[in-house]
Amino acid sequence: MKKLFCIALLCLSLSSAKAQKPIVVIQTDFGLKDGAVPAMKGVAAGVSADLRIYDLTHEIPAYNVWEASYRLYQTIEYWPKGTVFVSVVDPGVGTARKSVVLQTKTGHFIVTPDNGTLTLVADAFGIAALREIDEAVNRRLGSGSSYTFHGRDVYAYTAARLASGLISFTEVGARLPDTVVRLPYQKAELENGMLYGSIPILDIQYGNVWTNIDAELLKQAGIRYGDHIKVRILSKGKTVYRGMVPFVETFGAAREGAPLAYLNSLMQLAFALNRGSFADSFHIKSGQDWQVIIEKERK
Amino acid sequence: MKKLFCIALLCLSLSSAKAQKPIVVIQTDFGLKDGAVPAMKGVAAGVSADLRIYDLTHEIPAYNVWEASYRLYQTIEYWPKGTVFVSVVDPGVGTARKSVVLQTKTGHFIVTPDNGTLTLVADAFGIAALREIDEAVNRRLGSGSSYTFHGRDVYAYTAARLASGLISFTEVGARLPDTVVRLPYQKAELENGMLYGSIPILDIQYGNVWTNIDAELLKQAGIRYGDHIKVRILSKGKTVYRGMVPFVETFGAAREGAPLAYLNSLMQLAFALNRGSFADSFHIKSGQDWQVIIEKERK
Amino acid sequence: MKKLFCIALLCLSLSSAKAQKPIVVIQTDFGLKDGAVPAMKGVAAGVSADLRIYDLTHEIPAYNVWEASYRLYQTIEYWPKGTVFVSVVDPGVGTARKSVVLQTKTGHFIVTPDNGTLTLVADAFGIAALREIDEAVNRRLGSGSSYTFHGRDVYAYTAARLASGLISFTEVGARLPDTVVRLPYQKAELENGMLYGSIPILDIQYGNVWTNIDAELLKQAGIRYGDHIKVRILSKGKTVYRGMVPFVETFGAAREGAPLAYLNSLMQLAFALNRGSFADSFHIKSGQDWQVIIEKERK
Repeated sequence: MKKLFCIALLCLSLSSAKAQKPIVVIQTDFGLKDGAVPAMKGVAAGVSADLRIYDLTHEIPAYNVWEASYRLYQTIEYWPKGTVFVSVVDPGVGTARKSVVLQTKTGHFIVTPDNGTLTLVADAFGIAALREIDEAVNRRLGSGSSYTFHGRDVYAYTAARLASGLISFTEVGARLPDTVVRLPYQKAELENGMLYGSIPILDIQYGNVWTNIDAELLKQAGIRYGDHIKVRILSKGKTVYRGMVPFVETFGAAREGAPLAYLNSLMQLAFALNRGSFADSFHIKSGQDWQVIIEKERK
Repeated sequence: MKKLFCIALLCLSLSSAKAQKPIVVIQTDFGLKDGAVPAMKGVAAGVSADLRIYDLTHEIPAYNVWEASYRLYQTIEYWPKGTVFVSVVDPGVGTARKSVVLQTKTGHFIVTPDNGTLTLVADAFGIAALREIDEAVNRRLGSGSSYTFHGRDVYAYTAARLASGLISFTEVGARLPDTVVRLPYQKAELENGMLYGSIPILDIQYGNVWTNIDAELLKQAGIRYGDHIKVRILSKGKTVYRGMVPFVETFGAAREGAPLAYLNSLMQLAFALNRGSFADSFHIKSGQDWQVIIEKERK
Repeated sequence: MKKLFCIALLCLSLSSAKAQKPIVVIQTDFGLKDGAVPAMKGVAAGVSADLRIYDLTHEIPAYNVWEASYRLYQTIEYWPKGTVFVSVVDPGVGTARKSVVLQTKTGHFIVTPDNGTLTLVADAFGIAALREIDEAVNRRLGSGSSYTFHGRDVYAYTAARLASGLISFTEVGARLPDTVVRLPYQKAELENGMLYGSIPILDIQYGNVWTNIDAELLKQAGIRYGDHIKVRILSKGKTVYRGMVPFVETFGAAREGAPLAYLNSLMQLAFALNRGSFADSFHIKSGQDWQVIIEKERK
């Protein structure tokens, strides 16, 4: 009877082990036209047959660490806890930047060079722990000689092994202090009835302009659906756009071609032209240099 | 002995449960440069570890419901029965269009706004049943407050739960009448020896022009390989191209740079320049406004 | 006791069968905007629920067999043994080119038209055996009538069945002699202290220029990190670039905007502008017509 029970347990455990399918999500600025991304996926797929490998995006503009930071910030919370992200946007490859794995307070992992890529994730989801990858042990077999393609030989390999449980988080390497390299940017703030923020990103497909000012802060500023808001957008301190736009619940509430303000998929303030491109029409771009100041219209 | 048998059954059932891997295939007009598609995939991946998630395409031109309809029509029959498709091309987001799940007579499911996206699938594969998504129950946990990104919070979530058996088709929501919102277009017809049809799509990668006139109708019109056919292409009733082209079995049968007619991968009439772009050379586009009239050459 | 043991074995074997997850990796020149690639994936996914399907790239320039050859060469060794690759870049579709499956000496399989696509893989990884696909048996059910989309109806279908063990390699079809259609190109050679090679590809995302001259050959020519090398790049025998560049270990070792030579991710010589585009700046392209001659600077 005892043996029967053991076998039953064995079956169940084999089955439940299968149920915990590890996930790796990859982001790069490599594009999808060449062999870099499929080489990374091949290395990861070879680590464990149970791994599920997904793309975040590979269309980060070359060397744009800020956008890499934003894409991670925008997506990781929608993935299951334990998901391991790899981000390879690495203008300083070959220099002294560290290769790290960040565990967020939400239980996600990010494998990346520590070059600013972790800025927004660290601010939004917190640092549970940070470890430096020990490349002496955590590198693809046969990649030890001279050149190292970190994305393939270290990051994809380490992410796959961490996700599938072949190494624990501790085995990644030595723990570092809970600080990451941060890119400076204007955080969202309310001051004397004015809201200050930045334009971290454009919703490129539709030409919408996203800010980092969230619904809660709008509420504190007394701004509600139906209100009109004064909007000023600046690049390096110089005003690029000034206008009065309605704050609406859905695009359908504005007439075609009209500017509007709305809450985007991250519940943050954004600007659009209904069925047009706000960004193109008013020459708005995004990044650390772009700021926004808004205010409720005084009637 | 009975217990042994039970354990063996248990093992087998665990194993066969694994064998039924559910599939979700996603189509959008979001592109792959930002976080929208990976957020949808994260939500789906979080529903079930057994799910397999594939892309149909994310390069539907923004708001082009017609092309969304065509891409579903072009591909769903090549996927296993039970595959759940998600299509999010939604110019009317926030307006009164319904969120539905269509079950085709071929046993495929499509989760989409009912805004015309289902036109060609309904015509080609039939409506087994149509249900409106009950968003009160079928939405991602924590997405209930105000803004809803339907693709992520409702469609990807519901598709993943339906595919993996967490909800039945009935649990999607109330049944609707068997009619969908349809985009008008010229169906393929034979009348007095003339074939009338439309140009639903271009084979963009190669510049080929596809029609909706199928092999069976050509046969009825007496057109056979080796024949020459008179072709007239119209945009909004105005003739854009007029020519005589050979109907050939393979591209290799025409000389380089010469126009030809052939059967495409859907067994429908198409026009090409051998190793050139028919569409570019003759300024042909596609969509509901584009028609074609063909006739067998009289000798 | 014996029965107990059998059951335990059964459980284990079910479990280990699961562990051998078959992999298919697909490459085409179809792009990702239409239904061709998802139709291929649907056919493959329908063959076996255990299959894992990945993309190599679908952005091979239309009809560019040379680049198809290079992308396979660049990536297959990073995938597990037994991985089945499908490559569909097929300018001669409908002509007499054979449909084949190559088994490399490294244990990878490639399903492709034999039109030059196998050139670089055969040179680098060797031919263990070559078989012609017997299309009478190895084609998707229901695809037998007239038109055949080989990528979908034969290649994806055969690759999925081979990968998942539904057919053995022998069942693909009759064995062919161990030779494939080859595209001519300048192999890397050392002669009288001069190194001759070709520029098989550009690292398009960054504008870097890759050669086929590997680290071993550089060593034989006495070229070491820190040396300066004389570089001459020719197109169809005409010199396009002539310069003296430092051979450095990492990009960080050169000043911004300066030309440099380095070893790329395949351990082969490449040229770059640090944070610029060598290819754009000096009008370098790639392919069979492009050659490079290098020499160590004599001090």
